[in-house]
Amino acid sequence: MPASSLPALRVKPREERRVKGGHPWIYSNELELDQTAKALPPGSLVRVFDAHGGGIGVASFNPHSLIAARLWSTDTGARIDEKFLAARLHSALALRQRFFRAPFYRLVHAEADGMPGFIIDRFGDAVAVQANTAGAEVLTPLLLQALQAVLQPRAIVLRNDSPVRKLEGLEEEIRLAQGSIDPLPQVEEGGLQFALDLLEGQKTGWYYDLAEARAKMASLSAGQDVLDCYCHTGAFALTAAKAGAKSVRGIDRSELGITLATQAAKANGLDRIARFEKADGFEALEKLNAEGARFGIVITDPPNFVKSRKDLGPGSRAYRKLAKLAAPLVAPGGFWFVACCAHLLPGELFAKEVAIGLGQSGRNGRIVFSGGAGPDHPVHPHVPESAYLKWQVLQLD
Amino acid sequence: MPASSLPALRVKPREERRVKGGHPWIYSNELELDQTAKALPPGSLVRVFDAHGGGIGVASFNPHSLIAARLWSTDTGARIDEKFLAARLHSALALRQRFFRAPFYRLVHAEADGMPGFIIDRFGDAVAVQANTAGAEVLTPLLLQALQAVLQPRAIVLRNDSPVRKLEGLEEEIRLAQGSIDPLPQVEEGGLQFALDLLEGQKTGWYYDLAEARAKMASLSAGQDVLDCYCHTGAFALTAAKAGAKSVRGIDRSELGITLATQAAKANGLDRIARFEKADGFEALEKLNAEGARFGIVITDPPNFVKSRKDLGPGSRAYRKLAKLAAPLVAPGGFWFVACCAHLLPGELFAKEVAIGLGQSGRNGRIVFSGGAGPDHPVHPHVPESAYLKWQVLQLD
Repeated sequence: MPASSLPALRVKPREERRVKGGHPWIYSNELELDQTAKALPPGSLVRVFDAHGGGIGVASFNPHSLIAARLWSTDTGARIDEKFLAARLHSALALRQRFFRAPFYRLVHAEADGMPGFIIDRFGDAVAVQANTAGAEVLTPLLLQALQAVLQPRAIVLRNDSPVRKLEGLEEEIRLAQGSIDPLPQVEEGGLQFALDLLEGQKTGWYYDLAEARAKMASLSAGQDVLDCYCHTGAFALTAAKAGAKSVRGIDRSELGITLATQAAKANGLDRIARFEKADGFEALEKLNAEGARFGIVITDPPNFVKSRKDLGPGSRAYRKLAKLAAPLVAPGGFWFVACCAHLLPGELFAKEVAIGLGQSGRNGRIVFSGGAGPDHPVHPHVPESAYLKWQVLQLD
Repeated sequence: MPASSLPALRVKPREERRVKGGHPWIYSNELELDQTAKALPPGSLVRVFDAHGGGIGVASFNPHSLIAARLWSTDTGARIDEKFLAARLHSALALRQRFFRAPFYRLVHAEADGMPGFIIDRFGDAVAVQANTAGAEVLTPLLLQALQAVLQPRAIVLRNDSPVRKLEGLEEEIRLAQGSIDPLPQVEEGGLQFALDLLEGQKTGWYYDLAEARAKMASLSAGQDVLDCYCHTGAFALTAAKAGAKSVRGIDRSELGITLATQAAKANGLDRIARFEKADGFEALEKLNAEGARFGIVITDPPNFVKSRKDLGPGSRAYRKLAKLAAPLVAPGGFWFVACCAHLLPGELFAKEVAIGLGQSGRNGRIVFSGGAGPDHPVHPHVPESAYLKWQVLQLD
């Protein structure tokens, strides 16, 4: 439908400054919302104007969300159709192709790629899509067509099981939207192949956000004994093994994770170097401390300890505890990797907890690398909080 | 002299917590300082004990500095002699050799390498030393011996012209401490050679902290027109030219910088691709905007705009202005690099100013990389403020 037929909304006087300054969101209290507007179906495309009738752009609108409008374009005449979405996909693809030789990356990272609400991961000829807003949900049929036009994938899976969908009033749904995932799609990383069941497992099936960190740790692992606590499906562990680690021990509490990691070790001929066991992370670290175990490389990529604001206190202290338990396991001169995927815990607070826990462990050292997600997870300049991932590599004395 | 003969200082009751938690500093108000202690020569080595006589360690002490004691060891029996310093140098060297193939890096980064007050840059067979505290000043003769024992450099230059020396009551001094700098030492980076006059120029002669950033931008520069505003001695500009840039334009207000950059372009056979001109950064950017110039790659590594707390307001706005002037010069789909070396401006505030300036320029885009100094600038976990450098690479629409 032509843009001119879209419902028109107005930003309240003096509330247009942020969005005109480049921010992609308009909060519900910043919009003039009459009964008609409030009755618009969640996810409707709307035209947005300022109090004087000046154009702000075209947005997806959800009357029930705090973030009521998410801008697609600053042109109120823009048509958000299959062609528009395909152009955005092409731009996102071109950016990834500057940095990645093989087709394994996050293809679309929501607002930063001009596609609010959409997360798309590419696994060679298969893609996994998350629609995390009502706007993205409404546009999903068009997106599927656009993906078909741009990538011709053999499979598109909708991984609509993110908890953020609840905030937008959306149901959970995981399904194969197009094509077939038989045989299973694979991801290639660090010279290894991992089979992915895109309908099971965590998130979209693979944590691309830590690919650079895995390469970094693998480059330090040759000849080392490696511990990978919270190993998920073995990505850190097996890239380290492939890079020449002497031994690799992976620990995770997820049965599925351990099974997939063990299968991947076998499939890549690394099952004599890497072994995996099911255990709780903290309990395993405590046991290894009691045994006086030492590793040249210790990797700890724990789950999110701060899932809500009320977790901030105990969650922060969990990172401190992790430091206290992991640091003593690092051989002198060895390296410790620690990640934090909690977007509610700012980087400097995470770093502080790591330092305190390190002090409590009686160990000393230095931060050699501080990083985040790679270039396939770009960050919108006005939404810095979307840079949820932070990690450090420390060398310990 | 044996450690047991060093003067003993006591930390006040309940003030030992931070230092016992791993922090390397003790502030003057945290120490019991009688007249004898206050009369100790600045930079004296002392033993430090807690209020109950428990050992805290050996430190360099400066009664006239806010940071009164800087710990060398948590062992009160440690002898801080040539052998001790050589061992620290060996550890620092071993860490660099994990990450660098060629001997061009910051060899010692003060507290993070267990060598409070010392900054040491290595340029192949020459080294430049900064002693930034009274403690480092006193230990310099021992350090020179240790450096000789560990590296046998052909030249050691003391670059004691850092403004931080004033806080420690030290004079400026630049001199060749050992050996010869004829012929001039060279730094190799990105397949290029740069001759360095270690007795002239800025800081220790080379900004190793941006080496990773230069490699990143060079990798994006093939076939592009590149603008390097605030080009110093041409490191960004020439690594981009070497990596295949179509044209490179370097701008700096320093006559010496432009001269050295032009010489380096000629010496590396890049003078047909890269040209350099003397101009003020902001004025040059304004002029280029007026001309409607566009570049595939724009690099802006400005001087520190926030040298003191009173600069925080205007300095922050200078980064905003920089964004507003630099962004319009980036061709659609091109990349903009912006750095901030102001340790007084936190990373999130720098990022905010960049976002605001970008918005004011009317351009949109995404942060593709956020980084800092490389692994040869490790950070002490308890002194995160020493991670002064932050930079972003944005792709603009």
